[in-house]
Amino acid sequence: MPSERPLVDAAGSAVEIVEVGPRDGLQNERTLVSTAAKIAYIEALVAAGARRIEATSFVHPKRVPRMADAEEVMAGVPRGDGVRYIGLVVNERGLDRALAAGVDEVNVVVVATETFSQRNQGMSVLEGLRSFSSISARARSSGLRVTATVGASFGCPFEGEVDPAAVGALVRSCVDAGADEIALADTIGVGVPSDVARLVAEVRAVTTDLPLRFHFHNTRNTGYANALTAVALGASALDSSTGGIGGCPFAPAATGNIATEDLAYALRRSGVATGLDLAALVSAAALIGGELGIVLPALLGRAGDFPAGLSPERRL
Amino acid sequence: MPSERPLVDAAGSAVEIVEVGPRDGLQNERTLVSTAAKIAYIEALVAAGARRIEATSFVHPKRVPRMADAEEVMAGVPRGDGVRYIGLVVNERGLDRALAAGVDEVNVVVVATETFSQRNQGMSVLEGLRSFSSISARARSSGLRVTATVGASFGCPFEGEVDPAAVGALVRSCVDAGADEIALADTIGVGVPSDVARLVAEVRAVTTDLPLRFHFHNTRNTGYANALTAVALGASALDSSTGGIGGCPFAPAATGNIATEDLAYALRRSGVATGLDLAALVSAAALIGGELGIVLPALLGRAGDFPAGLSPERRL
Repeated sequence: MPSERPLVDAAGSAVEIVEVGPRDGLQNERTLVSTAAKIAYIEALVAAGARRIEATSFVHPKRVPRMADAEEVMAGVPRGDGVRYIGLVVNERGLDRALAAGVDEVNVVVVATETFSQRNQGMSVLEGLRSFSSISARARSSGLRVTATVGASFGCPFEGEVDPAAVGALVRSCVDAGADEIALADTIGVGVPSDVARLVAEVRAVTTDLPLRFHFHNTRNTGYANALTAVALGASALDSSTGGIGGCPFAPAATGNIATEDLAYALRRSGVATGLDLAALVSAAALIGGELGIVLPALLGRAGDFPAGLSPERRL
Repeated sequence: MPSERPLVDAAGSAVEIVEVGPRDGLQNERTLVSTAAKIAYIEALVAAGARRIEATSFVHPKRVPRMADAEEVMAGVPRGDGVRYIGLVVNERGLDRALAAGVDEVNVVVVATETFSQRNQGMSVLEGLRSFSSISARARSSGLRVTATVGASFGCPFEGEVDPAAVGALVRSCVDAGADEIALADTIGVGVPSDVARLVAEVRAVTTDLPLRFHFHNTRNTGYANALTAVALGASALDSSTGGIGGCPFAPAATGNIATEDLAYALRRSGVATGLDLAALVSAAALIGGELGIVLPALLGRAGDFPAGLSPERRL
């Protein structure tokens, strides 16, 4: 039950941060970034302690031109130190490319609602599930770990509220189809901690011990509360992007992913280990923020760490 | 014990939002706002359902010129509808002015650390406590409710970490001196939910039933998680400012208070009643944001409500 592990009681645990800045972040920013800059960014992330990085997407270059250099990025990233690279894959052709490019894992998105699935994936939820099943079987036979990310798990931009039981049923199908990990995504940033608890209960009812990962956006300032709640409820991994990059270019109102450095600050102070170096994360964020020419949504880089490097005075 | 009421389990309760935009917000923005605009802002807040508003500060006009129109503001605010106005008071002269201006409550800040107390208040912690005691006695004899706000309860910009036991001892002294309510302030925005739980436990050990209020800043993106945690742990009131205004003019890095509309969104979705109208809050925020000429830190006004008014599409 959720209430057995409240948000305030996660001290002593650890969580894995999946850095999604190079993929979800850069895909959803207006400015194009060169392949060399992407590789330098990933190098900075690895130097900051990132050990699991969603590096790129193997999608048709006409559909997402920003990810057209997937092979070149993968050819240039630093190897070793236990770093694992994830490639987003949307179909069998993408899987072929991901395998050839040498990714360590694949991530496949299935969408929780029909309208969003049709609009984003061009297929029904059931067709998306069948596609996941084919990709998953081949990826696993090639020795790759496979994550099923359930998009719009917390709400849909077209259909509104999403039934947690429907998310649970979809998760069950993904597990049956061979998922090594389930990721629940609040794609449009509408959820609150009680939604996290409800979904954890639904998902745990259909899969007791599979690794559970969450993907939050801070669109309405609930992302960090959700992330801390997920950790307290036993999530093994959280997605985030350094700097909080990933505000959608087609929707200027939307803010990006929760920021890795702000998340790592909150987790460190909560007694939860991440293996990340906060100062190095802030540097990596500044690097990519400079490439993008944007004011980053992340706050730690502006405010400074605490208590090392004390904060500016404030009039009461 | 904190774990009996986790963050995820506050549904069905209610919390009072204390709107601090007209005081803490406007005092800490670079742009000066006219008295007429302050009154129009307060009228918009009342129209949005705000029923407890920190309207101004009765501090020496040379020290805080932005609050020099305290009497004029109080003379112009709408009365009735159960709206209560709070005046910040720093000394006996300020109390005289607040009484004459017709405030309903006074708020007095005591600071948890010596260095910050000296730098901000020009007195030691003990002197601050004595000052609170004098103000409190006179205010109560005039029939006003008195809040003691403990500044820097979660961390000090000069001394770093603050011992929760020291905060608890200071709270005890404030209670003995007649406080009707205790407010714990994360003045520099460094705390996380486990800090909230620790402080609640400390404070509840010295005062079991006094109303407990919290004042959070979102300086490092932990403010909303802290606020939701405080509600789950039984806080009766939370401070926030519409738009999240109050970034300190002397420290451009610092973001302001948590935003009323974003907080109200999270609480409504968590099943916690506030009595606030979200669309009207967004309008009030836009009004004051226009006066200040700033991009508001609040996100609800950019992203839109959910599910009413569905969110923009986002590519997965």
